[in-house]
Amino acid sequence: MPKIAMLGTGLIGTFYTMALHGARSRDQVQVVYSRTLDHAQKFAGEWKIPKATADLAAAINDPEVQVVVVGLPNSQHEEAVTLAAKAGKAILCTKPLARTGAEAKRMLDVVEKAGVFAGYLEDLVYPPKTLRALQSVRSGALGKVLWARSRETHPGPHSDWFWNKEISGGGAIVDMGCHCIEISRNFIGKDVRPLEVVCWADTQVHPIEAEDSAVGMVRYANGAIGQFEVSWTFRGGMDLRDEVSGTEGTIWLNHWLRTGFDVFTAVGEGGYVAEKAESQTGWLFPVGDEVGGLGYRDMFVDMLDAFETGRPARETFYDGYVVNAIMDAAYKSIESKKWEPVELDEWRGAEESGGKVALTDYDADHILIKEEKMPNGQTKVILKHKASGKIVQKVVTP
Amino acid sequence: MPKIAMLGTGLIGTFYTMALHGARSRDQVQVVYSRTLDHAQKFAGEWKIPKATADLAAAINDPEVQVVVVGLPNSQHEEAVTLAAKAGKAILCTKPLARTGAEAKRMLDVVEKAGVFAGYLEDLVYPPKTLRALQSVRSGALGKVLWARSRETHPGPHSDWFWNKEISGGGAIVDMGCHCIEISRNFIGKDVRPLEVVCWADTQVHPIEAEDSAVGMVRYANGAIGQFEVSWTFRGGMDLRDEVSGTEGTIWLNHWLRTGFDVFTAVGEGGYVAEKAESQTGWLFPVGDEVGGLGYRDMFVDMLDAFETGRPARETFYDGYVVNAIMDAAYKSIESKKWEPVELDEWRGAEESGGKVALTDYDADHILIKEEKMPNGQTKVILKHKASGKIVQKVVTP
Amino acid sequence: MPKIAMLGTGLIGTFYTMALHGARSRDQVQVVYSRTLDHAQKFAGEWKIPKATADLAAAINDPEVQVVVVGLPNSQHEEAVTLAAKAGKAILCTKPLARTGAEAKRMLDVVEKAGVFAGYLEDLVYPPKTLRALQSVRSGALGKVLWARSRETHPGPHSDWFWNKEISGGGAIVDMGCHCIEISRNFIGKDVRPLEVVCWADTQVHPIEAEDSAVGMVRYANGAIGQFEVSWTFRGGMDLRDEVSGTEGTIWLNHWLRTGFDVFTAVGEGGYVAEKAESQTGWLFPVGDEVGGLGYRDMFVDMLDAFETGRPARETFYDGYVVNAIMDAAYKSIESKKWEPVELDEWRGAEESGGKVALTDYDADHILIKEEKMPNGQTKVILKHKASGKIVQKVVTP
Amino acid sequence: MPKIAMLGTGLIGTFYTMALHGARSRDQVQVVYSRTLDHAQKFAGEWKIPKATADLAAAINDPEVQVVVVGLPNSQHEEAVTLAAKAGKAILCTKPLARTGAEAKRMLDVVEKAGVFAGYLEDLVYPPKTLRALQSVRSGALGKVLWARSRETHPGPHSDWFWNKEISGGGAIVDMGCHCIEISRNFIGKDVRPLEVVCWADTQVHPIEAEDSAVGMVRYANGAIGQFEVSWTFRGGMDLRDEVSGTEGTIWLNHWLRTGFDVFTAVGEGGYVAEKAESQTGWLFPVGDEVGGLGYRDMFVDMLDAFETGRPARETFYDGYVVNAIMDAAYKSIESKKWEPVELDEWRGAEESGGKVALTDYDADHILIKEEKMPNGQTKVILKHKASGKIVQKVVTP
Repeated sequence: MPKIAMLGTGLIGTFYTMALHGARSRDQVQVVYSRTLDHAQKFAGEWKIPKATADLAAAINDPEVQVVVVGLPNSQHEEAVTLAAKAGKAILCTKPLARTGAEAKRMLDVVEKAGVFAGYLEDLVYPPKTLRALQSVRSGALGKVLWARSRETHPGPHSDWFWNKEISGGGAIVDMGCHCIEISRNFIGKDVRPLEVVCWADTQVHPIEAEDSAVGMVRYANGAIGQFEVSWTFRGGMDLRDEVSGTEGTIWLNHWLRTGFDVFTAVGEGGYVAEKAESQTGWLFPVGDEVGGLGYRDMFVDMLDAFETGRPARETFYDGYVVNAIMDAAYKSIESKKWEPVELDEWRGAEESGGKVALTDYDADHILIKEEKMPNGQTKVILKHKASGKIVQKVVTP
Repeated sequence: MPKIAMLGTGLIGTFYTMALHGARSRDQVQVVYSRTLDHAQKFAGEWKIPKATADLAAAINDPEVQVVVVGLPNSQHEEAVTLAAKAGKAILCTKPLARTGAEAKRMLDVVEKAGVFAGYLEDLVYPPKTLRALQSVRSGALGKVLWARSRETHPGPHSDWFWNKEISGGGAIVDMGCHCIEISRNFIGKDVRPLEVVCWADTQVHPIEAEDSAVGMVRYANGAIGQFEVSWTFRGGMDLRDEVSGTEGTIWLNHWLRTGFDVFTAVGEGGYVAEKAESQTGWLFPVGDEVGGLGYRDMFVDMLDAFETGRPARETFYDGYVVNAIMDAAYKSIESKKWEPVELDEWRGAEESGGKVALTDYDADHILIKEEKMPNGQTKVILKHKASGKIVQKVVTP
Repeated sequence: MPKIAMLGTGLIGTFYTMALHGARSRDQVQVVYSRTLDHAQKFAGEWKIPKATADLAAAINDPEVQVVVVGLPNSQHEEAVTLAAKAGKAILCTKPLARTGAEAKRMLDVVEKAGVFAGYLEDLVYPPKTLRALQSVRSGALGKVLWARSRETHPGPHSDWFWNKEISGGGAIVDMGCHCIEISRNFIGKDVRPLEVVCWADTQVHPIEAEDSAVGMVRYANGAIGQFEVSWTFRGGMDLRDEVSGTEGTIWLNHWLRTGFDVFTAVGEGGYVAEKAESQTGWLFPVGDEVGGLGYRDMFVDMLDAFETGRPARETFYDGYVVNAIMDAAYKSIESKKWEPVELDEWRGAEESGGKVALTDYDADHILIKEEKMPNGQTKVILKHKASGKIVQKVVTP
Repeated sequence: MPKIAMLGTGLIGTFYTMALHGARSRDQVQVVYSRTLDHAQKFAGEWKIPKATADLAAAINDPEVQVVVVGLPNSQHEEAVTLAAKAGKAILCTKPLARTGAEAKRMLDVVEKAGVFAGYLEDLVYPPKTLRALQSVRSGALGKVLWARSRETHPGPHSDWFWNKEISGGGAIVDMGCHCIEISRNFIGKDVRPLEVVCWADTQVHPIEAEDSAVGMVRYANGAIGQFEVSWTFRGGMDLRDEVSGTEGTIWLNHWLRTGFDVFTAVGEGGYVAEKAESQTGWLFPVGDEVGGLGYRDMFVDMLDAFETGRPARETFYDGYVVNAIMDAAYKSIESKKWEPVELDEWRGAEESGGKVALTDYDADHILIKEEKMPNGQTKVILKHKASGKIVQKVVTP
């Protein structure tokens, strides 16, 4: 039953505390920090947290606290993590880990030198659907994963600092691309090295300096592609979907707008529908369990179980660093208008030699390219002659 | 942190223990009972439960135990509840409460006389989607609820005793109709008296004595209809859906087969897909969080929070009794082939005088029947003349 | 290239003419009739129809006309059909055929005595999805059909006469129940005799004399159930769905609100969204091809091909008569509050002796009741001992 | 009633003829050509076509023929079109128009010099859903279109020549990318110039020379992005979806795998399920109306109505040329690993000056960046100070 310091009282601090204090939990936030004492005290009152403070170091160094949860704006992660590492506390840091790969690397070094437990709070690899899908992938249901698309778009974030490039480090890529990139990495395999990135981004709607929309592709060492799509211009709520294609199968995940929960109301219900929902009447698509569905519940279960049992968490600071490095390459590509390499000081995964096409013999002389059922009930096979390379088709009468 | 006795080690005992021990929970099953000691010991080992026994009274009377969870075959509920009431323990009893209304009434009397906390474990009003939908209904988003359909069908239960009418008390109605009936009651309002039932049932596929399929309607005092559809003959997995219609809106819930999680696999993954799943390859529809999605998690949160704080649970033994009385009327209707009254020794809800049609004036002389947008962009209104009763239509040019 | 007389210029006449004149068609409406000459002339202008008249007999007896399409209010069907039969013209009559079984029988007799081609325009068995689904059922993909649910609900019809019981013959049952009943008959098999009906109906919302909501069940000679659900109180557009369950499979058809076409608009598009759509902004669910999706296109292809080649149409006046007889029983059941027999002067299908449960041997001594994959990867079978009737379960290790 | 020469008897010739001869059509294929006389004769027999020939010129020059439909492998388009243009016949050519932009330009010049009617048979902008969606876009329901994704993936084509780069001109991009590119152009606006392309492609699965998978982005002059995703490696059937995002709305189209038609069968039906379907049992997703749903019906209606009335078709040879030019840029980008310009000899659309962000005043001093409903019922606005550029948030109590 570790006691926790919660740094930050925004939407993310709220969701984290809901998850930590939810459903008969034995975990307890002991102290909450906000730059504004008033916010901290109000938050503590709402969530029955014993202490509230506007002193960052005091929160971290509180002797009862074993675990520090960093839910602050991106520009404050490094400071908080450094203080917590010095204090020898376990650290759980929200996404993105940092604003740049270099900043992330410094933070990684700090926690590793201090030898403290350090988890990366990438909640969107923890929704129960995603955990179940990853299990299917690992048990071979999809064969080799070839392509993973992760999409997060909505009408724009809820807090001022996201829109300020200096504090956040960027726009929609830094805000949401980090989710999508790490989701794809999980499906493709964290052991597979990300090689290079191409990315488009633009400020299509909002009068800001950073990008409000971006689409990028990450090419991995085994030939797989991780595609991310992010936008602060989407209309209709929050579009949170993943698609994964493998040699043997396909997975489609819809986390938010189509989950088997449809409501039509001519009159509304005078309140909150779901995160980022845009309308109050007509057809609405609420989410049953927002905290669970966004992965917060299972994320803290993994993090705190890992901390207590001494195993690494599913998502570590090294993962956060890789994601930042990929985002750096994306930003370079936006400028250079070409594929840019992912620069990693250190690669801890496998050294793969590239994807190879699997060949299936049809008969002694031919390789099978494809087999297809035709409308007339026949089956057609497409074959390549091994010697000549000539492609032929053949109808197989059942 | 109440200590719990789990009576029963079947699928329901497993799901209950998964929920109670899940996700950083502070709750603990202290002793597990099975008729077969070996089963109890194996279960205790799997779930890290300190004690296992084949002695029902010993489990219930264990001095450390405060809460007894009854997860036994229907024919054993009354005995277990009676023992637990005598022992002064809090009781949580699985669904259906009993095999008949009379049996349920005796159990209700026993716990009320003993003055113990008694919760009815109707998990399917606790899925997060359902809780959220009920909140929408209560906040008026649907106006007055007119009709609620709840459907649970699958290829048949997993344990022998369900198929034995003497032990279970019936077939698909007793197994699943109890869920559907209570779901509809929740949407229509538990304060609204169920008046009468008509029901069809048949043994369409399985060589058993009880019904393997049934469809029934419950008419409520305010004119609303609760429709239940159950079957052990459904093919394609477990079809678990609710539909609710009100004067101002509609809710559709799909709990199992279409929840935004689609998988295609040509090769399978060599294991369990989801409860009642029937195929291992092709398009599959797994469920991310079975324990949560079936309502087990939120059910025990409600029950144990209620127990600890001294408030009643959302679902009580009285609810279980009402459900049994409705099922009794359904079985009578199957025999008599007509509507049969719901016989309740005691009605604790409101005495309503019947639903009335709401009238909206269109103008001084006319009542509005309906307004509709036409394909040509015009709006048509259907009106009833107040004096003559004549129905006319009028096109309103925008 | 038969020339056609169109009787009626309401929404149904519009849809029929759109279908007949659509997509490079060789068919042509030659004359249009409306009680109001002005309506007929306006309609003729819009649809390039050579002649318009307010004289019913003149339209029918027009020497160029070979086929008379009856798209009039229910109370005028018999007169129009009688005139057309006398004139020796082919007759296509909209649904329901008549207001009662007796009226339908007279119309059936009239056309059969006259020896003219007579098709029943039940469009909702002709949507391409339904035709494809019926083909699957006939080719055995579902085994024996056990249950078919057909649902049509919307906020109420667009024309005054529907709401007037004298002209229409009833409320939502006569308006839409006829569709649902015939859809189920098609899935269950038109050769299977409908035996009895139980039905609930009520006036839940609108200030009218007839029912605005009804749910009923038709029991067939082979044990199958056809369930119909109709309402003029539904909110959210037009809910048009069919569900079919068989011993080997399941079919779900959604014809209107969820067809793979989702639109969100914050601003609307200032016009018609889809038939019965209720909102102009927010999430909308338009239909790509309304005329095709409601079955009008394929219905007229079948009817006119049948007429030209001398084969019977898929839907005949006899089918219309059976539907009316079933609706008569439904109305009786609403009054008597019990199952009522379907009274048919003449049954042209098979004489079946009732559904029997199929038995599958598991081994020499046992019948297989059910086989299920368990979460732990094992398979469980439920067996019934042939001699003793005892039910046992057995775990089969793979 | 134009008489038609059908060149080609493969799957595309079959679908075209089904569409042309379907549903009470007045159109007629008069002569069919195949390189192999036997194929032509068999096809003529099946489809009741008067003449069959293996002589290309004879088919085209047949004096009864007014319209030549080119359904041949890509490498034969130019020859056929050139012959038909010389013969003064109307020409409808299948997609892609040519193998390269240069070839397409020669074909465009040939038909324009000859002054013949020339339609580009891009069927996938003609599905009824797409036509309806385009109408919504044009009527302003989405505001300005910012992004359009079109995806076509399946397990690979059915005919040998597609797999042969020399005959087809490429792989999945040439086969399906042409569809996706033109779909996006339609949504973004054909008047908007495509400027540049970035594309990834790889041979991930099949032992062939061309790409079996590709993802690309086309940047348009107004800042919009058209994204295409194609693959011959997809598992689960044919994934045919479009997504469109605009400043005011969103459209999602699913053309194949989720159209409101779900079937489960434990036994199959012994035949064809749908184009590219991969399984015969389990959950299947057939398509009700393949010919209509793929756009063939409405495409020929547009083409032949256009031909008869002298207006241009919705899709012309110029459109086909633009698509080829975009594909050329995509292939260049695959090689160069950077964005490549779209090279068009002639641009017939508007000369736009680039997309600009729309500004909305919140008050005299601030621009509105975003407004959001919060979980606690409050509304938060994000504002940018006009003078300082500072970003602030403000909670608006309702």
